[in-house]
Amino acid sequence: MKEVGVGIVGFGTVGAGVADGLLRGAALISRRCGLKMTLRGVADVDIARDRGVDVPRELLTTDTFGLIAREDVDVVVELIGGTGVAQEVIRAALQAGKSVVTANKKLLAECGAELFALARERQVDLYFGASVGGGIPIVRALRDGLVANDIRAIHGILNGTCNYILTRMAREGSGFDEVLADAQRLGYAEANPSLDIDGFDTAHKISILTSLAYGVSVPLADIRVQGIRGLNPVDVRYASELGYVIKLLAVCKAHAGDRLEVRVNPTLVPKDHPLAAVNDVFNAVLVDGSLTGDTLYYGKGAGREATASAVLSDIVSVARHVAVRTPRAAEPLPPLTETGYTLLPAEDCVSRFYIRLMVREACGMVGRFATILGNHGVSIFAASQHEPTEAQRTEGYVPVVILTQPAKAGDIAAALTEITEQGIVRSMPFHLCIL
Amino acid sequence: MKEVGVGIVGFGTVGAGVADGLLRGAALISRRCGLKMTLRGVADVDIARDRGVDVPRELLTTDTFGLIAREDVDVVVELIGGTGVAQEVIRAALQAGKSVVTANKKLLAECGAELFALARERQVDLYFGASVGGGIPIVRALRDGLVANDIRAIHGILNGTCNYILTRMAREGSGFDEVLADAQRLGYAEANPSLDIDGFDTAHKISILTSLAYGVSVPLADIRVQGIRGLNPVDVRYASELGYVIKLLAVCKAHAGDRLEVRVNPTLVPKDHPLAAVNDVFNAVLVDGSLTGDTLYYGKGAGREATASAVLSDIVSVARHVAVRTPRAAEPLPPLTETGYTLLPAEDCVSRFYIRLMVREACGMVGRFATILGNHGVSIFAASQHEPTEAQRTEGYVPVVILTQPAKAGDIAAALTEITEQGIVRSMPFHLCIL
Repeated sequence: MKEVGVGIVGFGTVGAGVADGLLRGAALISRRCGLKMTLRGVADVDIARDRGVDVPRELLTTDTFGLIAREDVDVVVELIGGTGVAQEVIRAALQAGKSVVTANKKLLAECGAELFALARERQVDLYFGASVGGGIPIVRALRDGLVANDIRAIHGILNGTCNYILTRMAREGSGFDEVLADAQRLGYAEANPSLDIDGFDTAHKISILTSLAYGVSVPLADIRVQGIRGLNPVDVRYASELGYVIKLLAVCKAHAGDRLEVRVNPTLVPKDHPLAAVNDVFNAVLVDGSLTGDTLYYGKGAGREATASAVLSDIVSVARHVAVRTPRAAEPLPPLTETGYTLLPAEDCVSRFYIRLMVREACGMVGRFATILGNHGVSIFAASQHEPTEAQRTEGYVPVVILTQPAKAGDIAAALTEITEQGIVRSMPFHLCIL
Repeated sequence: MKEVGVGIVGFGTVGAGVADGLLRGAALISRRCGLKMTLRGVADVDIARDRGVDVPRELLTTDTFGLIAREDVDVVVELIGGTGVAQEVIRAALQAGKSVVTANKKLLAECGAELFALARERQVDLYFGASVGGGIPIVRALRDGLVANDIRAIHGILNGTCNYILTRMAREGSGFDEVLADAQRLGYAEANPSLDIDGFDTAHKISILTSLAYGVSVPLADIRVQGIRGLNPVDVRYASELGYVIKLLAVCKAHAGDRLEVRVNPTLVPKDHPLAAVNDVFNAVLVDGSLTGDTLYYGKGAGREATASAVLSDIVSVARHVAVRTPRAAEPLPPLTETGYTLLPAEDCVSRFYIRLMVREACGMVGRFATILGNHGVSIFAASQHEPTEAQRTEGYVPVVILTQPAKAGDIAAALTEITEQGIVRSMPFHLCIL
């Protein structure tokens, strides 16, 4: 049986899970793939701390680049994260002709193009199945399982922290700050939660899925990102009364003329839609393929073991290539501007919308709003006035909620600006997309 | 760019879809996999009939074995179905050193072991991703994505015809025969529906998933199969009142001591369980992996285009191997008796149970049933007496429904036999598993 040597860089949560999986799962993996995987070493700046897994001391090293350079290391697994040392590690490994497996979505979203080009030049693999969806094999499904499909759209719930917060807000009617504090205490959210709750983590992931679906590299700065920070629980409640739950959705969708819509924003999802049932820290991705129609992939999107499962799956795939020394498939992604694709401007994205307006006196207001919206080409689908809360009553404002027919985001923004300028609402109305 | 020649045998629904997909999707597939796929020919006994797709006449042939033997055919796609000619076609192709892609679950479930052994001997691939789950890449997920997981259990809704019938019965309260007749008229069920409604198609599929999860070949005769033929709509209604929907579930599960539970039967699924929301002709597979926990795969399980998607994905994978001439991975599956695994006898399978008993007079009956069940080690979880239907009132019998705590199927059967022998019920009580 051929033997493939593996070196892990980064002995954090996921690194420890992968080391443990390789050591304890060696027999299972060998039986299934016909190769012997041998862990040659694990590099980290701190090899003294207890990581809760049983890895022989002699496998631990602080000499990262020494481990990468070892003759008997064929596959380098980068699990440091971030864009600093991680990038040097991957570059050094690829340059040394080693295949690389990484879970680093930020690095791939920000400088993937250069690293994939280097992998191609050196004829080695750069695999990243753990970067999106944790244990859900969604990267593999898009790359291999759906290879013959034109991808019409992808809708994903890709961040467990946000989904946990939104699930608890919907279930308990709790406020955002309160649930966030709980999530931090339970370890579901970081001390600095911005990457998650402001939608950037989700944006990194949809950028990776877009590159798989359309073969283009979309600059992160071009993706419209709205997070869930400070979401008002009244909107969660109104949405529920109207038959919706609010989810942080990542969307990429192909429109006529090779125009791509790529965005991340809180969205009203009908309660009978498959994504509405995705709760707590779970992730799900709904892919609309030209041949398959909708297929859905659901599971734990994070955590030591789920992420280790995806990394180990990539190690096995890469090891098969190493064992037979075949040419590799990694192709450099052309930047968006060098392809036929263009990005759909945010203001041209069409959706139904949920709008909450705070007015002094609801009487006759829906008619006035309807007129202004109508002047901008927006029709109303449903409208309802809500019982004001104690605070709202004190302030002397009552909420009016409007659901629109499909409209361009730009037209909605223009209509809401006009409504605000007329001085009939307390402040710029709050609005969300409806799926 | 390397060119790989493809020959399709069988120009039925799926064959036509694959030919169409290869011809129309050639550019997309080439861009994604870096290979040129060329359709060399399509063989069928009837090449005159219009198949609704645009395939050049000169590609059609009635000479099946001539097509297989062509020098420029590298991959043979068997889409005849059944175990007769299909088997000869696959054997001829493998013997000629061609890789084979098939969607033929019946053939694989019945004589897969021999064919895989032949593929291995000839160092070629035998891929079968379309045999389970149509367009859902579940075979690939089990083989590659979850390769590092011990599979703890698989629960699947694998037959679209049955799920369509059960969905309509639940939604409308309709009778089995009526919905089956509708399904036949709409083309969702065959004129001879036995393969679907008696559970055999589902059994073929769970047999394939079991071989992927545990690397063993389980004889079909050893799988306990109960279909949905003649399911009484009253049980659908009682289940709903108790918070369940009835689904035809395929289960494979590993127990302590490498004992495998493999079965197919109508099962009560709690309404908030992810599988309960799988309706109409859709399929779904829930896989519990040791690292990932539960992951779910959902989509269209049948149809020309969805199945073609899976076949095309396999053609691409096989073509990559052909292009680089690497050794293949197909390994012969040992029969169950040559492995450490044993099958859990049907009577030892533990589940909660739904039991419907028809009694002359409900008064005091639940207590009598509880005593008898208790003597067999079975506890009651809930019991309810139901309003008899008109017919039941005429016959003078009223239904009593009991839900049990987890119990062995053998103990339930013994208790129900004892109840029947006591002459207090009209006939042997009806029972189903609860998920």
